[in-house]
Amino acid sequence: MLLALVVIAAMGMRVSGWAARLSENLFAQGIPGKVPACATCHGLRGEGGGEGVFPRIAGQPAAYLETQLKAFRDGGRSNPLMSPAVAGLSDADIGAVAAFLELEQPPFAASPTPDESRLARGQRLVALGRWDMGVPACTSCHGAALQGVAPAIPALSGQSSRYLSAQLRAYKNGARAPGPLALMGRIARGMSGEDIEDAALYIGSLQAGASPQIPRPAAPESYVAKPQSPDGFVPPPEAAIPEGPYGELVRLGQSIFEDTPKYAASYAGNTLSCRNCHLDRGRDPKSSPMWAAYVHYPEYRKKDGLVNTIQMRIQGCFRYSQNGTVPEADSREITALVTYFYWMAAGLPVGVKPRAAGYPKLDPPKEVPSPERGARVYASNCALCHGEGGLGRSSGGQQVFPPLWGPHSFNWGAGMHQVDRAAGFIKTSMPFGAGGTLTDQEAWDVAAYVNSRPRPQDPRFTESVEKTRELYHADHEYDYYGREVDGLVLGAPGALEERDKHSR
Amino acid sequence: MLLALVVIAAMGMRVSGWAARLSENLFAQGIPGKVPACATCHGLRGEGGGEGVFPRIAGQPAAYLETQLKAFRDGGRSNPLMSPAVAGLSDADIGAVAAFLELEQPPFAASPTPDESRLARGQRLVALGRWDMGVPACTSCHGAALQGVAPAIPALSGQSSRYLSAQLRAYKNGARAPGPLALMGRIARGMSGEDIEDAALYIGSLQAGASPQIPRPAAPESYVAKPQSPDGFVPPPEAAIPEGPYGELVRLGQSIFEDTPKYAASYAGNTLSCRNCHLDRGRDPKSSPMWAAYVHYPEYRKKDGLVNTIQMRIQGCFRYSQNGTVPEADSREITALVTYFYWMAAGLPVGVKPRAAGYPKLDPPKEVPSPERGARVYASNCALCHGEGGLGRSSGGQQVFPPLWGPHSFNWGAGMHQVDRAAGFIKTSMPFGAGGTLTDQEAWDVAAYVNSRPRPQDPRFTESVEKTRELYHADHEYDYYGREVDGLVLGAPGALEERDKHSR
Repeated sequence: MLLALVVIAAMGMRVSGWAARLSENLFAQGIPGKVPACATCHGLRGEGGGEGVFPRIAGQPAAYLETQLKAFRDGGRSNPLMSPAVAGLSDADIGAVAAFLELEQPPFAASPTPDESRLARGQRLVALGRWDMGVPACTSCHGAALQGVAPAIPALSGQSSRYLSAQLRAYKNGARAPGPLALMGRIARGMSGEDIEDAALYIGSLQAGASPQIPRPAAPESYVAKPQSPDGFVPPPEAAIPEGPYGELVRLGQSIFEDTPKYAASYAGNTLSCRNCHLDRGRDPKSSPMWAAYVHYPEYRKKDGLVNTIQMRIQGCFRYSQNGTVPEADSREITALVTYFYWMAAGLPVGVKPRAAGYPKLDPPKEVPSPERGARVYASNCALCHGEGGLGRSSGGQQVFPPLWGPHSFNWGAGMHQVDRAAGFIKTSMPFGAGGTLTDQEAWDVAAYVNSRPRPQDPRFTESVEKTRELYHADHEYDYYGREVDGLVLGAPGALEERDKHSR
Repeated sequence: MLLALVVIAAMGMRVSGWAARLSENLFAQGIPGKVPACATCHGLRGEGGGEGVFPRIAGQPAAYLETQLKAFRDGGRSNPLMSPAVAGLSDADIGAVAAFLELEQPPFAASPTPDESRLARGQRLVALGRWDMGVPACTSCHGAALQGVAPAIPALSGQSSRYLSAQLRAYKNGARAPGPLALMGRIARGMSGEDIEDAALYIGSLQAGASPQIPRPAAPESYVAKPQSPDGFVPPPEAAIPEGPYGELVRLGQSIFEDTPKYAASYAGNTLSCRNCHLDRGRDPKSSPMWAAYVHYPEYRKKDGLVNTIQMRIQGCFRYSQNGTVPEADSREITALVTYFYWMAAGLPVGVKPRAAGYPKLDPPKEVPSPERGARVYASNCALCHGEGGLGRSSGGQQVFPPLWGPHSFNWGAGMHQVDRAAGFIKTSMPFGAGGTLTDQEAWDVAAYVNSRPRPQDPRFTESVEKTRELYHADHEYDYYGREVDGLVLGAPGALEERDKHSR
């Protein structure tokens, strides 16, 4: 019977009637003489309690809750109250309670009195991260409103500062197991004690449903651009974006970079945003930073046989990576992006290509990249965020993790479809917060796997897939365009739809 | 009778019949017992002789020849052969011979055997100048084919290297009077002995009618852009423009900059070129250099209330300074100019506004700038090149000196119509090769004079001249737009045509 509940919950349907009542009873009353009621500590609807000591468990992904409860019960996670409390729960009980809690939405607790300067510091960490310390923005994985992303990534919204900082400290000092791919362990170790307190303070202060925004200081930080060396370049701090029309355009460019489908809605052809490939909003030196790009255009590109201005280069991203419509060179969108890049490049010499330009290059692979081996690497390291089917993961109606193939990903003309480029990016930056953990060969293999999946047609398609491969793909080693994989010719008209049908 | 000849010649008509024969006789036979025949030394048709010792005098502007002959006769210019030879000539004789010679076009003498490296050095000097030493390109004043510009500027084409170097040395050491505005004296003093020899060698080697081109080395000079300080910045040498599509686009931008009506023919609305206001092809640090502009855009401009990319800024020049049609932001013309500027800015830090950006600013004038005083400054210092009527001077069908007002000049929206900007430019850069010779007050006065003349309508014209003045001109001190000068309201519809009629 409880198994049936789990199945219903897993199907994403609202738990109702007798089944819901049963799991609600378990939550509210426990199992007499065996398991104490969850509500005793975690609040009548799972909203948390004990002045923040007991976490909010309502609204968390059921799978995440199950994992945690089983960990408490079986010893993977240890807590003097929880471990004995859940000892008497069967897997079915756990599934039932988790399914019930996922759908609960009690109001948030009152915000703590904020300390403005610490809150602002926490906000920066939560909304922007500290990528130089390996700390992505919390929103990158937990969602724009920290609402969590099923199945594995818990909501942080509505959680008390006290609980959050306790958990981050536990991750940092190893008292809590580091979780999937050991990500939270790594990230917490990249945070100072002060970082942890301030980030937790800020998240605890958020109103229900609020998305962390980039903090905007009352008066911009004063910043005077000085000549800098192209190597070791540090862009101006976000807080130094000035007031006035220039600063507004920089901010618009930043917003488009952060959420392309929202801020360049007329041109975005998929759910990707610029920042998906250019981490830390285009600042990260390891993922083709925009400050480095800005200073080496205009440049001749073999891709279109033209000298490209920075505007034309961005248009290319809309056409290929965004699989979208190309904005005019003087459209507000392109101008805003150019202005954002210009602002970010302050102090960099024109025409001196920084070493950071483009993506890191790996040595040639020892063995020919293998999609088969890559599929295994993918399942263990990538599927957590990008999904088994490569379609990415959404939460709250917004794409959190980008699709890597399929109809909503970049097309066969995008730079990232090239195996060598993808391998360099994956090796240094993936998984988020754990760059460098794959071997070079694993990076090559998983890049080959991702790039041997179907995706939207190359917009330069001419005549036939053979002709198009000859014109635009023959030069790139390990380019799967036009090759037959699993009985389908990649890039052939209809191949994407065909594969899409199979995977349903 | 001889006076009539002069009048005919001055009217630009072909000297013919008995009048021509008379002056030809004077040239070919002299005045027996009194004046030796010019042809004895200068060749049967004035092509020069004595292996380059005796200059080519055919095809020179009649007024220039008259000035020189009178100077030899009256002691202003001294030469052991010429001074006694012309002692017996009357003003009328001189006028007749000068009028005859202006229209003669004997073939050029054979080129001397060239020394390639010295020729290339000379070519750079002739076509590009050495502006840092106060030496403009020879072509800036003598015309694109060195054909001379009537009335005052002699042709250099067809002249022997020997004669040219002798004259430049004479200018340099003071043996020849420095000529109008003392320009040639200053310029020759800016040249080294080697400069003089090489420039003369190159000019002597030119085929009839050939225009000096920017030298293009067989293999571009190797040049590695290095970070440079914005103050004291030196752009890459012209010879370092690389081969290939990028270099070709840089060259196209340079050509458009050099001769806008020719290379951006669809968009140029007058006979001005970019280089007329931005000397040394946009490299000169004293006249709003393009390398300095490149690194501080995108920037907010009050002029249009928008953040301007460098493309938009250049579009503004086409609209106002060119009084033309605005090319699209991604047109080949704008892209070529942007690429040229980018190439020129190599090594300059982005976003750090160099001190050289824009035009030099003068201290406020001691007295309110006076067009009346300015008219006198203009007549003595500017009319030589820009003409009494401000319409500039052409030669060989090409504009050599730009019009400063009237229908073919910049319009009422151009930056240069602002008196403060014009005053700063004039003070530091005018006359060509003699910047800094006017007092500040003279520069203010002559700028006021130039800017109190009629010119094409402000393209932002709205409703009426009063309304347009209020919207766009009221903020600029000493802006003559909408003011009444000599009974005409400047900028009022029809004012330009009215003034044009008066001045004919």
